[in-house]
Amino acid sequence: MGLIVQKFGGTSVADVEKIQNVANRAAEEKANGNDVVVVVSAMGKTTDKLVEMAKDLSAAPSKREMDMLLTTGEQITISLLTIALKEKGLDAVSYTGWQAGILTEPVHGNARIMDIDTDKIKTDLAAGRVVVVAGFQGITEDGEITTLGRGGSDTTAVALAAALGADKCDIYTDVTGVYTTDPRYVKGARKLLGISYDEMLELANLGAGVLHPRAVEFAKNFGVTLEVRSSMEKERGTVIEEEMDMEQNLVVRGIAFEDQITRVSVIGLDNSIGSLPTIFTTLAKHHINVDIIIQSGTGTDKANISFSIKSSDLKETLEVLESNKQLLNYQEIESETGLAKVSIVGAGMISNPGVAAKMFEVLASEGVQVKMVSTSEIKVSTVVAEQLMVKAVEALHDSFDLAKVAIES
Amino acid sequence: MGLIVQKFGGTSVADVEKIQNVANRAAEEKANGNDVVVVVSAMGKTTDKLVEMAKDLSAAPSKREMDMLLTTGEQITISLLTIALKEKGLDAVSYTGWQAGILTEPVHGNARIMDIDTDKIKTDLAAGRVVVVAGFQGITEDGEITTLGRGGSDTTAVALAAALGADKCDIYTDVTGVYTTDPRYVKGARKLLGISYDEMLELANLGAGVLHPRAVEFAKNFGVTLEVRSSMEKERGTVIEEEMDMEQNLVVRGIAFEDQITRVSVIGLDNSIGSLPTIFTTLAKHHINVDIIIQSGTGTDKANISFSIKSSDLKETLEVLESNKQLLNYQEIESETGLAKVSIVGAGMISNPGVAAKMFEVLASEGVQVKMVSTSEIKVSTVVAEQLMVKAVEALHDSFDLAKVAIES
Repeated sequence: MGLIVQKFGGTSVADVEKIQNVANRAAEEKANGNDVVVVVSAMGKTTDKLVEMAKDLSAAPSKREMDMLLTTGEQITISLLTIALKEKGLDAVSYTGWQAGILTEPVHGNARIMDIDTDKIKTDLAAGRVVVVAGFQGITEDGEITTLGRGGSDTTAVALAAALGADKCDIYTDVTGVYTTDPRYVKGARKLLGISYDEMLELANLGAGVLHPRAVEFAKNFGVTLEVRSSMEKERGTVIEEEMDMEQNLVVRGIAFEDQITRVSVIGLDNSIGSLPTIFTTLAKHHINVDIIIQSGTGTDKANISFSIKSSDLKETLEVLESNKQLLNYQEIESETGLAKVSIVGAGMISNPGVAAKMFEVLASEGVQVKMVSTSEIKVSTVVAEQLMVKAVEALHDSFDLAKVAIES
Repeated sequence: MGLIVQKFGGTSVADVEKIQNVANRAAEEKANGNDVVVVVSAMGKTTDKLVEMAKDLSAAPSKREMDMLLTTGEQITISLLTIALKEKGLDAVSYTGWQAGILTEPVHGNARIMDIDTDKIKTDLAAGRVVVVAGFQGITEDGEITTLGRGGSDTTAVALAAALGADKCDIYTDVTGVYTTDPRYVKGARKLLGISYDEMLELANLGAGVLHPRAVEFAKNFGVTLEVRSSMEKERGTVIEEEMDMEQNLVVRGIAFEDQITRVSVIGLDNSIGSLPTIFTTLAKHHINVDIIIQSGTGTDKANISFSIKSSDLKETLEVLESNKQLLNYQEIESETGLAKVSIVGAGMISNPGVAAKMFEVLASEGVQVKMVSTSEIKVSTVVAEQLMVKAVEALHDSFDLAKVAIES
């Protein structure tokens, strides 16, 4: 007997049959005696089709009008899902973002939620209704429709769970949970029963891709318990919460990796206080995402800076650096493609100083040369040769005992 | 220098190219120095596709949820059109029904407009913006999304024109105007330059189909001047207004016709005061639309009643009458299919008592037998054999001089 917020993404509502499946999942939770709020995304490729039409009309369509356009996607899903729920004999009602009282800042395309007026939803829940809310969207104080940007539906679900004081927010997706590493690459990958917000954040940022970091951060800040689970399978998923009872002994909880990484080095940079900010501000202006940054000061008036980027950004990165050579005042640029990033993540690292060292040892024993390193309190990232990526991940997965501990429920 | 409301239907915005064409039409009006409000419907077959998905989920989907679902159609069009307008360098903004302040009664699927709060639109127009409004939709006082039913976008356009005190409401469609009769059947059919509201109402009800009667009635009540014109051709259309300067000498303004009509006669009905209402209430309960009704009282205690229906309704009509034989207390039912309705319409008839007589003479001289007659102040409808329908229309079109007076501009 509690309140559950369920979130289903675009692939889980891609067609009429899948929408019926979602209705079944909501009905089961309701039959368990829980109040249920369902948050849904746009159906499958709806958003892509809408974007395509807009792009046919304008290379740079107005952000306000794109919000008007794209929010129709979730509105279609909520009404169809509610029709499906009513057909099953449940009382249900659909709300767009603005009807659900989701107030955002006045920014188009990437607005943050400021407040949620939950009166209407609470009344419906008290009357026994399943409430179906459009994810990804909100409204400003001036009545302008806004969208929340990438991961928006996850954020809507978590924000609603926080505002309603829900017992749990279930994120339904096309995988059965969060894994120790990507099971498509590593046979021994196991589903985790539990993980902390911070670990999930590091894994999400590193490309695990099941849950948007912004939603995890929101959940962490408001103490919302999340569960990542499959919309097709009935098995238990991965619970994300602050207190971790299970698998507490694990120093490393998961291994994330990403290929197509390139290292760029700026050699002989003027060693003044302004060089570092100038370089990265210039790149940021061109929307080039820089990941790991390493500065090797030499004590002289010249410094070398290395950073990693996605290989697809290399051409533009070199152009930006070349065209700003005078401003940046460096001697030369060097780059290396064909790299990958491999990271170990685990909250237990904080109290285990030897974890990074063990990682380097394992990699060395496999003949994997580490090209760059970056560490946080719960993560160690290394950049290695792309063709050794899977080998490195497998070795680390074994060495940190990840194949042994996680249990399928 | 004035304010023009333009309305474009689904076929006029069916794809990206057509939306660009609509943007051009709005831009031209703006370049003429006018303020412009554009009302649009959902793109082409969008509504049909949405209805189909809903029907896949439920045979009788909730009306509230259908309103939630279908209103996305116009929201897609308004944002795309606004993107197209901005691409042309015009300042423009899109509003859904609720953003445009279109308040309706709390009825789903067929709501009437109660009030329009035009503050926002007026501010935008004063700032030089083209305002693009979603047709067919509104909002209740409680924040529920409603739709206006058939002809809803026409009604939205006329209601906005009335509320804004617009100089004109242009209804863009796939024909170039209102014709003296259907040009697909009668070669001599000519476009009318002008027509009165009442004449248009009779023509619209009789199946001319270019403009919904409800919108015409709204325009009449609020004195909004309408022009029906082509979204593809630049030529002048047909102006609909109270005062008719042009073609005033025309007694008959147009000829409407409709095939697949069936006459049903109820013979030997109990001649009590309750028989007539009972029969038609019973049929109305089964959503059978009855058109012409003729009662021939015989002075005895038995009466005969004849009425016309669409032939497609015959089977159900007979079933309803049979199953209520006891209640209705008649002797027998007789029916005749293969009929058509031919009507002449013109405000000038009121002061020309011989018009009906002339019509019957013309039909008789062509060997067309009149099976039923119904008259209003500005219309005479006859039911004739279906295979003589076009012949009858052509003869009437000639005899009432309709081929001579209308001028192409």
